Amino acid sequence: MPFILEGLVTTRDHQGKPHVAPMGPEVSLNNCNSLDETHFTELILKPYQTSSTLKHLLATRVGVFQVTDEVKFIAQGAIGEWPEPPEFMLAKKIAGDVISSCCSWYEFEIVEADLSHDRTRLIARVLHQQVQRSFLGFNRARHAVIEAAILATRVNFIPKEELLAQFAQLKILIDKTAGDAEHWSFELLKKYLQDHPRQV
Amino acid sequence: MPFILEGLVTTRDHQGKPHVAPMGPEVSLNNCNSLDETHFTELILKPYQTSSTLKHLLATRVGVFQVTDEVKFIAQGAIGEWPEPPEFMLAKKIAGDVISSCCSWYEFEIVEADLSHDRTRLIARVLHQQVQRSFLGFNRARHAVIEAAILATRVNFIPKEELLAQFAQLKILIDKTAGDAEHWSFELLKKYLQDHPRQV
Repeated sequence: MPFILEGLVTTRDHQGKPHVAPMGPEVSLNNCNSLDETHFTELILKPYQTSSTLKHLLATRVGVFQVTDEVKFIAQGAIGEWPEPPEFMLAKKIAGDVISSCCSWYEFEIVEADLSHDRTRLIARVLHQQVQRSFLGFNRARHAVIEAAILATRVNFIPKEELLAQFAQLKILIDKTAGDAEHWSFELLKKYLQDHPRQV
Repeated sequence: MPFILEGLVTTRDHQGKPHVAPMGPEVSLNNCNSLDETHFTELILKPYQTSSTLKHLLATRVGVFQVTDEVKFIAQGAIGEWPEPPEFMLAKKIAGDVISSCCSWYEFEIVEADLSHDRTRLIARVLHQQVQRSFLGFNRARHAVIEAAILATRVNFIPKEELLAQFAQLKILIDKTAGDAEHWSFELLKKYLQDHPRQV
């Protein structure tokens, strides 16, 4: 059963500047004993044909997958607006950038690419992985932010009223369990949705 | 802004046997720098008046809060059925039990108890904390299991049709992103709900 781990992929654009996008690669839990440090030798990435991440990966073949418990980067990456961008440090084994505050990261190179579908399928071999700090743990508000971020990316496909109704459901979890960063992230996404021009 | 961290509380009953219950204590993120290992000096627990956890805590004053990424224990604890119970090891500083496979744990003693409301409020001082392994990271299915577990505890208060409709929504996340353990946990909760006698 493939397991989807949500995190952030960092790539470099043609000017060498870091680009961050939320992504949920397939990981094989067979490759990791969940009682040890997490460890994957391979990630399956599925960026859309139109995404900057795919363009960069086809050009450079390398990138970084970051596990983080900071949902504000997932929220900002989903809508491509960065009022509070992350800081970066250099990757160890590739020409790439690592979000300094991430929990753990996986530097990878693409070894296989299937571009025949709208959602592509890239096999990424892990060249280096490192754990930096603990992931805080389960928090319902953080997951509400992730679901809200995914909803925000669908603003051109799903009627705004429907998205706002789902935001109202998620807001209940925010009010019950969020800290400041989750409130901030949720409001950022809600404002993005409200300000987005209604599609014709 | 109080932040609710979801995990598991272990207490001992009057025979000294371990009892596990899911709980979301308030933690103060001011007490922890999220860039370091998580570290809390205090937890605020809010068990219900009728809960076994409260009874045990009032008798022994000590317990263990566990952070885990294994939702199967949260699912089983929510419904009080344990087809796959955890293994335990002895706590370090108190007479208590730690779930062997947890990510990190906090041994605590209750220093203050407000029992004036249906949902009590216990101030727990952390006597010992230890990080054991990495929390895997965000996975939408794991959070769907947590939401399903919370819904399952409301089977006597919310009409079954409504709960099953919400389960159907959560099932979408399970189908998209779950591994075996999440499928198992979700089915356990769904069966519990379906088998539960309809309230009069």
